[in-house]
Amino acid sequence: MAKFKLDEIDHQILDMLIDNTRIPFTDIAKKLLISAGTVHVRVKKMEEAGIIKGSSLTLDYKKLGYSFIAYVGVFLQNTSQTKFVLERISQIPYVTVAHITTGKFNIFCKIRAKDTMHAKDIIFMLDDIDGVYRTETMISLEESINDKKRLMHTIFNEL
Amino acid sequence: MAKFKLDEIDHQILDMLIDNTRIPFTDIAKKLLISAGTVHVRVKKMEEAGIIKGSSLTLDYKKLGYSFIAYVGVFLQNTSQTKFVLERISQIPYVTVAHITTGKFNIFCKIRAKDTMHAKDIIFMLDDIDGVYRTETMISLEESINDKKRLMHTIFNEL
Amino acid sequence: MAKFKLDEIDHQILDMLIDNTRIPFTDIAKKLLISAGTVHVRVKKMEEAGIIKGSSLTLDYKKLGYSFIAYVGVFLQNTSQTKFVLERISQIPYVTVAHITTGKFNIFCKIRAKDTMHAKDIIFMLDDIDGVYRTETMISLEESINDKKRLMHTIFNEL
Amino acid sequence: MAKFKLDEIDHQILDMLIDNTRIPFTDIAKKLLISAGTVHVRVKKMEEAGIIKGSSLTLDYKKLGYSFIAYVGVFLQNTSQTKFVLERISQIPYVTVAHITTGKFNIFCKIRAKDTMHAKDIIFMLDDIDGVYRTETMISLEESINDKKRLMHTIFNEL
Amino acid sequence: MAKFKLDEIDHQILDMLIDNTRIPFTDIAKKLLISAGTVHVRVKKMEEAGIIKGSSLTLDYKKLGYSFIAYVGVFLQNTSQTKFVLERISQIPYVTVAHITTGKFNIFCKIRAKDTMHAKDIIFMLDDIDGVYRTETMISLEESINDKKRLMHTIFNEL
Amino acid sequence: MAKFKLDEIDHQILDMLIDNTRIPFTDIAKKLLISAGTVHVRVKKMEEAGIIKGSSLTLDYKKLGYSFIAYVGVFLQNTSQTKFVLERISQIPYVTVAHITTGKFNIFCKIRAKDTMHAKDIIFMLDDIDGVYRTETMISLEESINDKKRLMHTIFNEL
Amino acid sequence: MAKFKLDEIDHQILDMLIDNTRIPFTDIAKKLLISAGTVHVRVKKMEEAGIIKGSSLTLDYKKLGYSFIAYVGVFLQNTSQTKFVLERISQIPYVTVAHITTGKFNIFCKIRAKDTMHAKDIIFMLDDIDGVYRTETMISLEESINDKKRLMHTIFNEL
Amino acid sequence: MAKFKLDEIDHQILDMLIDNTRIPFTDIAKKLLISAGTVHVRVKKMEEAGIIKGSSLTLDYKKLGYSFIAYVGVFLQNTSQTKFVLERISQIPYVTVAHITTGKFNIFCKIRAKDTMHAKDIIFMLDDIDGVYRTETMISLEESINDKKRLMHTIFNEL
Repeated sequence: MAKFKLDEIDHQILDMLIDNTRIPFTDIAKKLLISAGTVHVRVKKMEEAGIIKGSSLTLDYKKLGYSFIAYVGVFLQNTSQTKFVLERISQIPYVTVAHITTGKFNIFCKIRAKDTMHAKDIIFMLDDIDGVYRTETMISLEESINDKKRLMHTIFNEL
Repeated sequence: MAKFKLDEIDHQILDMLIDNTRIPFTDIAKKLLISAGTVHVRVKKMEEAGIIKGSSLTLDYKKLGYSFIAYVGVFLQNTSQTKFVLERISQIPYVTVAHITTGKFNIFCKIRAKDTMHAKDIIFMLDDIDGVYRTETMISLEESINDKKRLMHTIFNEL
Repeated sequence: MAKFKLDEIDHQILDMLIDNTRIPFTDIAKKLLISAGTVHVRVKKMEEAGIIKGSSLTLDYKKLGYSFIAYVGVFLQNTSQTKFVLERISQIPYVTVAHITTGKFNIFCKIRAKDTMHAKDIIFMLDDIDGVYRTETMISLEESINDKKRLMHTIFNEL
Repeated sequence: MAKFKLDEIDHQILDMLIDNTRIPFTDIAKKLLISAGTVHVRVKKMEEAGIIKGSSLTLDYKKLGYSFIAYVGVFLQNTSQTKFVLERISQIPYVTVAHITTGKFNIFCKIRAKDTMHAKDIIFMLDDIDGVYRTETMISLEESINDKKRLMHTIFNEL
Repeated sequence: MAKFKLDEIDHQILDMLIDNTRIPFTDIAKKLLISAGTVHVRVKKMEEAGIIKGSSLTLDYKKLGYSFIAYVGVFLQNTSQTKFVLERISQIPYVTVAHITTGKFNIFCKIRAKDTMHAKDIIFMLDDIDGVYRTETMISLEESINDKKRLMHTIFNEL
Repeated sequence: MAKFKLDEIDHQILDMLIDNTRIPFTDIAKKLLISAGTVHVRVKKMEEAGIIKGSSLTLDYKKLGYSFIAYVGVFLQNTSQTKFVLERISQIPYVTVAHITTGKFNIFCKIRAKDTMHAKDIIFMLDDIDGVYRTETMISLEESINDKKRLMHTIFNEL
Repeated sequence: MAKFKLDEIDHQILDMLIDNTRIPFTDIAKKLLISAGTVHVRVKKMEEAGIIKGSSLTLDYKKLGYSFIAYVGVFLQNTSQTKFVLERISQIPYVTVAHITTGKFNIFCKIRAKDTMHAKDIIFMLDDIDGVYRTETMISLEESINDKKRLMHTIFNEL
Repeated sequence: MAKFKLDEIDHQILDMLIDNTRIPFTDIAKKLLISAGTVHVRVKKMEEAGIIKGSSLTLDYKKLGYSFIAYVGVFLQNTSQTKFVLERISQIPYVTVAHITTGKFNIFCKIRAKDTMHAKDIIFMLDDIDGVYRTETMISLEESINDKKRLMHTIFNEL
């Protein structure tokens, strides 16, 4: 962020977009007493600077039949395979997050499945990737917090 | 989802919103050869049914100075304190995800921090919550995948 | 169970069979003030629906010289071998239960043996199956509870 | 078993009862070319000697809505509480098996639940027992083997 | 021990030999008011029955420059190699005890060494045996109890 | 051993005593072509120097009904209690060896028991000592090596 | 380092000091074809900027009777005690390094001791600090690399 | 240290050099009321005896952009490769310390890196060495103690 400096107006625009990505620019403009064009220009700038990378829909996975969440730790035979394995993992849509991590695992994934049976199938997909040596699974009994908005607001209040 | 049945049109609307939550309804309407009003009614319905719960901005945390991600496993003194501890955790904005889990941890969190020093402060905040007995941290060296869109598209293709 | 609906009479029949699988249908009939034929028809129906899958004798293994119980966690070289290994395990009669599990083990077995020496032989049989990488054993010092009847009654009271 | 000696006829009777606990004694008698009374007397003797302790129904738990199986390892604050904790555990019908074990756990339980949510409730019941210090759960993705009959036949063939 | 029955005199003889294997039979005879020949005959009998297998000197290893004790857990590549590996281990004189064990290790050894450097060499000897996959070492900071005599006396008092 | 120097004759005497603690001094004298008095004096000297601490009988524990061996790792609440706990442990005759160790355990014990039931009682005795926080048990399936003589001979050959 | 910029001459001075902290400034001056005063001024500047914090003697610990190195992981009862415990640890001179760490330990220390006995005493000192819950020790069998000079040269070559 | 005896004057010289390796010998001489030549001779002697092996600069790694410290445990495929792997490790300047250790790791390293990304690269360098089977990383959140001077003073006070 060295090159790009967000000012107070940017923060307020971001604060509103964080709460509702679909808010019309005219609404933002009205609240901030600036023109919709200004909002448009500033959002564009933040997109071009790569600060805003996009937006994502928040669906109710349970209502869609995907109530099963698990974390899967992956052990590789050799970390030189990390890149290759991650490419293969990225072809499994049920893996929504994957990290290269310190500690006992080489790669750590979050998966969403329909139920135990489905989870087993996904874990087996991971196990069957060349270079994967073993996996270890930890099952979520309840997703109690899943909220990036609090963090986003905090970041902009700090800046 | 027993009560609410999504049809092909709903799926196509969702597919477009998943890719870009800010897409104007008129654009969706044009592509699907239906009226913007219909799009509006259907999105509203899916929101009322609780399938669409909202949307969230995707920011570049690195550019915002938050390049440090860690997973923190929390051991409780007693699981009867789970609810209380989760409430306290939800007051720490740097914790973006928290799960009640099986396996060795009682609660499993994802945190975002500025750097090692900041991470230490956040871990200490967690450690200092009454009822937290011990924590164990696993640090992300690289967030290789963070993408719910592939899953969302898969879900709607399956339905 | 979507297709097949158990009613109050079914529950009462099941409750009696759970306590004593050898109870004559005439005894059940007398207690429920229905005909033995009705009992017969209903049990048959529950068998055809697959709810009742059979019955098993409860023997005193200690009196038969089998006082040693252990749980054996099996690590596979590759989970693609799971099915094959389970087939081989199912040929060892001393393994009475086997699960595909999350966590550190791929397969988790319960074994009954005569003594330490016999247990060693059974563990070695498991270790020698192609595709088994390692096993880890946890020995039962006392089987304090082994009772499915409480659960069965609970299920039928809940329905 | 020092005092009570099973002979070949006893073994054959047991072999038939193992396969079907509800088989009429007249059927056993016919197959073994002995009188039904003899069958009755011998079964009675084996019951009195405590070799046959009863029989249990085999239900299809999945069809009854109980498709979730987990193993829960229980750590006690002090093993002097073992007896007390086991009594409390025996009041939870969802725990079908419990062992005092060597290794890292003090008590090791098998539970059957409806789903993840229900499992969480049962695990919390265990966690909330006085003297329970912590629990660790391993979830079954598939119950591949659950069959005591093979063992029983083996025992009687060995004798 | 089914065939051989020890009587009170045998116990008393053993009790004295346990305390001092070099005690002359005439001393034992005098104390028990029996003849030295009787002592001789009874000890011979217990040796022939295999109850007494021999005797061993108790040396002060520290004074002899062997003050370093460690326990080494050995993981095998495959338990079918257990016998072979144990034969190789038995050629390393610094391994005084080795067990086939349950739990995480396949073989568990006790070693005595001169110091850290020497221990390293012994551990490397173990590591270099064909079929040994990995070892894990736990070092003794103090040998607080090493006394079989208490157990031996207890056994004979119980008999 | 700085003060006391063993010479070749001492080594040869020790070598014979290691093999058979009951060998008469006259036999040793004959083999070494020295007087029995010399043997006596030298053994006495080694006893006074504390090199020879005594001797112990080697019994066949299996024949005596003690076929069960286990290693028990003890966790203390606080290591300041180490001394006290070791005193209490030394009152349990079934514990034949106990070490203060590095690694995960504070104290590491070897126990000999009659069978699983007896082992459970002994483990509970350990668990019930004040200051003992938890224990973890590893069971021996076979005592493959238990031989200090090889080491002793090696030591004297090295000196 | 934002404020203070090292130039090529600084690097060359540092390179020489890294190899030999006692090198006279006149020697450095001669090699770099600058005046000793310049060397003095630049070293002073780097000291004032805090880049050079001092120097330390490299002793042969083995020759001084300190051949035993161990890493001790410390678990705290509560991380709010971290600061207090670190102050107490810093009073034990045998602890040469201590870190607050992620993973299973709260604090991770390096200790140097004379031998096993001495190590035990040091570990007990750590265990006896208020707030320390447990420690786990890993012993060094050989210090194969202990060399910061390679890193220092690398840093200055990179700058 | 058997051959070389340090006297009180040596200790005092060492005490001063420990605090400041660059202290001129004339300063030491003045404080100890001896000639600078004597200081020179004695330091030379201690260097020749190998007690003083050199000196090292203490830099502020944070100011130099190296604020990230981690401990990396290395598992080898076979310990016969230890020497070879250590040679390869010694070519990575970011590894400042490496030990052959007991416990779960074969080799245990300390690394210094610029940040998480850099640490990942270094860990991958370690992982990619032939013979390295797996690594496990523990990250330092704060280097609270790094001070050999206290130990050095203690050693000389003890002598």
